[in-house]
Amino acid sequence: MAIKACVSAALAALACLSAQQAAAAETCPPLRWMTLGTAGGPVPTPDRSEPANLLTADDFSALVDAGDGTVVQLARRGLDLTRISAVFISHHHMDHTGGLPAVIGLRWMNNMPGQLTIYGPPGTREIVDGIIATMGPQSRVGFGLGLGQKSTPPSDSVRVVEMRSGDQVSSGNVKITAVENSHYDESVSGKADRAISLSYRFQLGSRSITYSGDTGPSAAFEKLATGTDLLVSEVIDLDPILASIRKTRPDMPEAVFQSMSKHLSTHHITPVDLGSLAAKANVSRLVLTHFAIPPAPLTNSEARLREGISRSYSGPVDLAIDLQSFDVACK
Amino acid sequence: MAIKACVSAALAALACLSAQQAAAAETCPPLRWMTLGTAGGPVPTPDRSEPANLLTADDFSALVDAGDGTVVQLARRGLDLTRISAVFISHHHMDHTGGLPAVIGLRWMNNMPGQLTIYGPPGTREIVDGIIATMGPQSRVGFGLGLGQKSTPPSDSVRVVEMRSGDQVSSGNVKITAVENSHYDESVSGKADRAISLSYRFQLGSRSITYSGDTGPSAAFEKLATGTDLLVSEVIDLDPILASIRKTRPDMPEAVFQSMSKHLSTHHITPVDLGSLAAKANVSRLVLTHFAIPPAPLTNSEARLREGISRSYSGPVDLAIDLQSFDVACK
Repeated sequence: MAIKACVSAALAALACLSAQQAAAAETCPPLRWMTLGTAGGPVPTPDRSEPANLLTADDFSALVDAGDGTVVQLARRGLDLTRISAVFISHHHMDHTGGLPAVIGLRWMNNMPGQLTIYGPPGTREIVDGIIATMGPQSRVGFGLGLGQKSTPPSDSVRVVEMRSGDQVSSGNVKITAVENSHYDESVSGKADRAISLSYRFQLGSRSITYSGDTGPSAAFEKLATGTDLLVSEVIDLDPILASIRKTRPDMPEAVFQSMSKHLSTHHITPVDLGSLAAKANVSRLVLTHFAIPPAPLTNSEARLREGISRSYSGPVDLAIDLQSFDVACK
Repeated sequence: MAIKACVSAALAALACLSAQQAAAAETCPPLRWMTLGTAGGPVPTPDRSEPANLLTADDFSALVDAGDGTVVQLARRGLDLTRISAVFISHHHMDHTGGLPAVIGLRWMNNMPGQLTIYGPPGTREIVDGIIATMGPQSRVGFGLGLGQKSTPPSDSVRVVEMRSGDQVSSGNVKITAVENSHYDESVSGKADRAISLSYRFQLGSRSITYSGDTGPSAAFEKLATGTDLLVSEVIDLDPILASIRKTRPDMPEAVFQSMSKHLSTHHITPVDLGSLAAKANVSRLVLTHFAIPPAPLTNSEARLREGISRSYSGPVDLAIDLQSFDVACK
């Protein structure tokens, strides 16, 4: 009887502990960001995978940009696509979208349940339609099991939600806001269906993570980032890149050089501009990714990046590596 | 005068050496294979990248299959896409094609010269057309240089050559032969436009490399491999995979299990069958890749793989890792 009572008490204690853990999980669900690929720019690099990220917010997991190698990077952390219900694409440059076909295709090929939602700026539907078209031959082939098995049509495995500046969507407790940033030149704007490059804010209760995508200084992006706990941003180490262009392309006409210089400083963000933006937006923590740097180790750029940011911003600054994760704890 | 004569003699010696090196390079141009990704099957793995390979034959460089992460894997070896003029796709399963959009897209985005030729079985054109369609939004956006620059249309950056069993193509001194293997089930065959899975042989003078793609035992593949210097082949560690299915899916109906067992042993190749094929084809060297193994380190399978192969084949057998390269020297 005593033993029984002890066992009962022990079980009750375990149940109590378990309930406490559940309550803790309920009051502080996870809000995390993983940098799957931290390279910047269209030229692939030896030590950093193409731009891709994983957001985890409560029970919602989404990829944010999906460059070449996204699925493999996930696998390197023991993660597969079953947990991922959405992809947010910041803009339509191939370094940010090159891995999307494999995400959609391997998810379909592995017969994963549910529908993947692809969010992105106008044009996203056209991209996903192209990806679905690439899957035609494979969906007709099947997988050789000889059971007369019929694959789900690839088009049923995915849906597209195109977002414009100011649009909000939500999934469970997570609210996602998109704004147009300054990555795209005016020369491609001004039309109803013009190209848009987006920054995203992921809000879970009072906590948030804001992601720059590719952008230069931008009032909309600064406003979006206001009071955010974690700002994940691109950055460009401009001066050595311009010096490298001068050196390797002495034949470049001055007008072209000036145009390139303007592009790199207004469509991408320098440490000084980023520090200023992070300070004005009162950002709690800054994580750098998508490093647009000369073809050399990041160490060569780190002091310049930190010095530029620190002119205005005094919060913590991390230089992300691939497969690193960043947690936003409850306050 | 003496000094001048010495300098002349030294220069002549250098020129002689240089000419000798050139002659050596001419008489023995490189024939090499690099395993960019050695994973097997549709489920991405933490320690091996998706199926992809790089063939170098004289001055011809081609990708052979292009799974997710191909471009990043190339970059990890300091290689970019400028040197690559062709891609050979073995068959249309997404683990072998998931990286092709990034190959085509990043090559185009980086404005690399020349046209990339995509060889593959019927259906390849449909896949490439889908990829080109995904590039529509990006080709309209441009790259923000504000120079009124107009990108080359993505469709101009690539051409497609569909191959059927027995087809040969050549590039310079390299002759490539494709044969249909046994990867695809009869249930998908019998039509004029039926799905085909190909094996390839790359011949440079008297030297050759033969690549299985995905296949089970196949007379056509065996014939293709006859006398080849280097056979790069998939392999399946069948018994533990079947045991794992029995264990994790005790609910699986026997008919489904038998069908899966047949698929795995006739559409993929066991060590015993591969050893037999390599012996009959008189292959000089065997390199294993595309490891279909249980979700555990390859070390757990290595003894079984080697034992099965060695029942018939006594030549050297290497178990490839990602980014390994294999040289076929001149005889």
